[in-house]
Amino acid sequence: MSLTIYLSGEIHTDWREQIKLGINASNLDITVLTPVLNHENSDNIGNEILGDEENPFWKDHKSSKINALRTQNAIKKADIVVIKFGDKYRQWNAAFDAGLAAGLGIPTIILHQPQLIHPLKEVDAASMAVAQNPEQVVKILKYVCQN
Amino acid sequence: MSLTIYLSGEIHTDWREQIKLGINASNLDITVLTPVLNHENSDNIGNEILGDEENPFWKDHKSSKINALRTQNAIKKADIVVIKFGDKYRQWNAAFDAGLAAGLGIPTIILHQPQLIHPLKEVDAASMAVAQNPEQVVKILKYVCQN
Amino acid sequence: MSLTIYLSGEIHTDWREQIKLGINASNLDITVLTPVLNHENSDNIGNEILGDEENPFWKDHKSSKINALRTQNAIKKADIVVIKFGDKYRQWNAAFDAGLAAGLGIPTIILHQPQLIHPLKEVDAASMAVAQNPEQVVKILKYVCQN
Amino acid sequence: MSLTIYLSGEIHTDWREQIKLGINASNLDITVLTPVLNHENSDNIGNEILGDEENPFWKDHKSSKINALRTQNAIKKADIVVIKFGDKYRQWNAAFDAGLAAGLGIPTIILHQPQLIHPLKEVDAASMAVAQNPEQVVKILKYVCQN
Amino acid sequence: MSLTIYLSGEIHTDWREQIKLGINASNLDITVLTPVLNHENSDNIGNEILGDEENPFWKDHKSSKINALRTQNAIKKADIVVIKFGDKYRQWNAAFDAGLAAGLGIPTIILHQPQLIHPLKEVDAASMAVAQNPEQVVKILKYVCQN
Amino acid sequence: MSLTIYLSGEIHTDWREQIKLGINASNLDITVLTPVLNHENSDNIGNEILGDEENPFWKDHKSSKINALRTQNAIKKADIVVIKFGDKYRQWNAAFDAGLAAGLGIPTIILHQPQLIHPLKEVDAASMAVAQNPEQVVKILKYVCQN
Amino acid sequence: MSLTIYLSGEIHTDWREQIKLGINASNLDITVLTPVLNHENSDNIGNEILGDEENPFWKDHKSSKINALRTQNAIKKADIVVIKFGDKYRQWNAAFDAGLAAGLGIPTIILHQPQLIHPLKEVDAASMAVAQNPEQVVKILKYVCQN
Amino acid sequence: MSLTIYLSGEIHTDWREQIKLGINASNLDITVLTPVLNHENSDNIGNEILGDEENPFWKDHKSSKINALRTQNAIKKADIVVIKFGDKYRQWNAAFDAGLAAGLGIPTIILHQPQLIHPLKEVDAASMAVAQNPEQVVKILKYVCQN
Repeated sequence: MSLTIYLSGEIHTDWREQIKLGINASNLDITVLTPVLNHENSDNIGNEILGDEENPFWKDHKSSKINALRTQNAIKKADIVVIKFGDKYRQWNAAFDAGLAAGLGIPTIILHQPQLIHPLKEVDAASMAVAQNPEQVVKILKYVCQN
Repeated sequence: MSLTIYLSGEIHTDWREQIKLGINASNLDITVLTPVLNHENSDNIGNEILGDEENPFWKDHKSSKINALRTQNAIKKADIVVIKFGDKYRQWNAAFDAGLAAGLGIPTIILHQPQLIHPLKEVDAASMAVAQNPEQVVKILKYVCQN
Repeated sequence: MSLTIYLSGEIHTDWREQIKLGINASNLDITVLTPVLNHENSDNIGNEILGDEENPFWKDHKSSKINALRTQNAIKKADIVVIKFGDKYRQWNAAFDAGLAAGLGIPTIILHQPQLIHPLKEVDAASMAVAQNPEQVVKILKYVCQN
Repeated sequence: MSLTIYLSGEIHTDWREQIKLGINASNLDITVLTPVLNHENSDNIGNEILGDEENPFWKDHKSSKINALRTQNAIKKADIVVIKFGDKYRQWNAAFDAGLAAGLGIPTIILHQPQLIHPLKEVDAASMAVAQNPEQVVKILKYVCQN
Repeated sequence: MSLTIYLSGEIHTDWREQIKLGINASNLDITVLTPVLNHENSDNIGNEILGDEENPFWKDHKSSKINALRTQNAIKKADIVVIKFGDKYRQWNAAFDAGLAAGLGIPTIILHQPQLIHPLKEVDAASMAVAQNPEQVVKILKYVCQN
Repeated sequence: MSLTIYLSGEIHTDWREQIKLGINASNLDITVLTPVLNHENSDNIGNEILGDEENPFWKDHKSSKINALRTQNAIKKADIVVIKFGDKYRQWNAAFDAGLAAGLGIPTIILHQPQLIHPLKEVDAASMAVAQNPEQVVKILKYVCQN
Repeated sequence: MSLTIYLSGEIHTDWREQIKLGINASNLDITVLTPVLNHENSDNIGNEILGDEENPFWKDHKSSKINALRTQNAIKKADIVVIKFGDKYRQWNAAFDAGLAAGLGIPTIILHQPQLIHPLKEVDAASMAVAQNPEQVVKILKYVCQN
Repeated sequence: MSLTIYLSGEIHTDWREQIKLGINASNLDITVLTPVLNHENSDNIGNEILGDEENPFWKDHKSSKINALRTQNAIKKADIVVIKFGDKYRQWNAAFDAGLAAGLGIPTIILHQPQLIHPLKEVDAASMAVAQNPEQVVKILKYVCQN
């Protein structure tokens, strides 16, 4: 079965690369979509393209909406959304993506370390699997896609 | 116009009470829904009703799903979801609720202090208003409901 | 919070009465919907109203569709569907109702004895709570509805 | 007309192979999706990938959800869901799939022996055809797909 | 269970009155919606309110759309649509209403004499019951609504 | 723009061939779907595949549902549904298809002679164009698809 | 039949009052929803409640979103949306409301003078009636609601 | 990420050509859909194909609906709708398209000069980006589509 997946969340580690490598190594028929992964570029894209905002709220607002053109389209195209939470940053956008997927009826796999179990309980409870590392995600995808 | 609103997020301050008082003071035709606000009760409800789990993951899992029976029904019944973010805790469930409302096409009002603008940029960008205090939320509701 | 629930499944024990008594005892704001509980009546209703069929397939077919006018409308009106599985009979209609609720995005509570865990694993996995007796269901409803 | 079908239900007979052979023999433009057919593998996949659970309920729970990532995506992609019921096992997951397809508005063909007519009456009544053997299913598919 | 029904189709016999009398006689909790039953009024309403059209196509067009404001809203509000076919007139609007209900996922009861079985086969096949007289429809409604 | 169209209605004239020829002549990027056009085959398909029914109602019922597997899937896949009404037969299935398309939000083109304007007024009023001959339908499709 | 209507568009004439008076005079069971009709208040509400913006784009942005909390909820609650276009101002918000209603499947009545026929052709073509004065709208509503 | 976009609005300047050139220059994987851009042809298409109407209202009506077969299908197929507003003409169809996209949940980019900020405030507030020239739109698309 061919699938489209979207990899949401943490952008300062290489977990997406590990999943892509695993998908390629197993030759799975999976299209992988991601957000823009250049943090600085994604934060400034509104000002860069549409002109400067002095007020940081509107600067963030413009950039976030341009990013949403990509991320929300990618989530709608996905059969499964994989979301990675880490210790750094608040990652409210990752939890927002999990909720958005739930509202659209798209199943999720959540990826995080055991110490985050309690704060992520509602997000985990709405998901189809909770993994601790990218290898487990690849194994799930391999199982799900097998012929 | 009569409305139903759901008040999601932070549970350790009295912001919901302030909004309810404001709604009553202005005699607005608004039904207010909330999650269960007793933190300990809401964390333990799975074990309490359905029996003990030793593994904290499944304890959280059972409680979260029972809470979801209430919160997700409340969000679906709401015309507007108001979500408060604070400095304490990670509040990924609040961001999840914002995403869920977006996926269901229900508009949101986000409530937070200015120092959270950057981490909340995606959540704010998907909302209809960003307020800094409960009084502003009441004013918006009063404006929206007026005859 | 007021709720509408539908009680699906097993019809030869008094579990629905126990839930209704519990709801009344706790004065919960819950509307309870049920299928027609007279087994013989529900099996024969097609022939009775619309005329005899000799072929048992079409006799069942006509009755099932008239019952579906009630059960499927009730499921669509419900905020929560509670489904009881027992040892007797195959109860494929109960599992069908669980799937229908899932397809419509309506959350379920499943009620069954521990010995049915393995055959019900897919149904349980799609639910928000798995209870073993009607008292637990009442406790969940009481928790979910509290003001 | 090209179609995608999903073959749900009984996994201990070769009915799926017969349907696939019939589709190939008639050169029909049909993509066939199935669940994972290795029973043991599908029962244990949760523990295998995500770690052991001692409690059989949670073991089943984890496996069922990983399988649901495959089966529910396959049902959503299908134009027609074919569901086979047999005498062995309770097959509540098969009836769940029939309900899920109904809730999503996807038509079903039900496949079973005449002795199961009465217990399957609600499932049959919600379907577009009730066949007794794989050859009949292939004939229906051939008729439906013809140019 | 309270229900809303819409009575579509044939307007030159008193079948709607018979159903309403039966509902009242049995004290059923059913709201009955109907199209405008004055044939001449319904044919001319476009010209009457919005001004004359010489071209009969546009005269019909304007009237049909004003009638659709009533009939399509009524169908959307209905839990069950009852549609009566007779020998007179072509009644394509009745068959259109049956299709519209099917597209919206609202179940139908079809009412007609046995001689119309063949031309109505597709409409009947998409319905939940096929009755021959208003008494049968009342009996179905009484069965479906019982407490 | 590439399109998929479904040609519903009258099966005893060659209007579908004329439209297909026109589409080919203009080299339009249009996929054409149709019902099974062999009248006798389509009437008997239920009995032929699934076994004899003596009661003509159930014979029609089984055939109609097998045909619906094709026609309803084709309508859901279509961007535009073209429906031809003629003088012969009652063609309630054609009007049903028009209603189904309306309920699913798929636009229609209706094709009929001027003498049918009054009985088709509700069907025409719900359509995007009313043509009198296949050439006009081809011209509309050519206009709609142009680059 | 009881109805909810939303009156969108032109706010500098008294057309809404005329429609409300007509509804009251005929004692129709219609709930009337409107936008906030105080132009200045509606333009400034963002700055007033949420604090000043110097940039007129963001001032307009904040006010428009607060107004959308009212107008989009009102449109979703409406069975019929009535939209008045006049000569003054560009009224792109009125045309936006017409499109929003179309996207949500809610029927519209458009109200305008004959000189606007050409620029409003797409909006009119998507509506169920085009009236020239409030009296005609009241007559349509009276016809649609009659018992 | 591959995307489909629809370019709505102003047809008397070459903004669509500029966007297409930019897309080609950057080799983006974007399918571009547009309305028919020959103004006279699009105004007269109804009369041309389906026969003359003397009343300009019905002439416009027939043409608008044929155009809607193209434009509404294109909007439904689009991942992003770009809408250009200019000073000339009232462009109510452009604002209608923006509302239709909003009702269907499809994100928009609005393109206009700063002097139109106030009249377009509701349309802009419902969009994901407001650009002033085609180059900015191309930059956004390039950012959104990057691998």
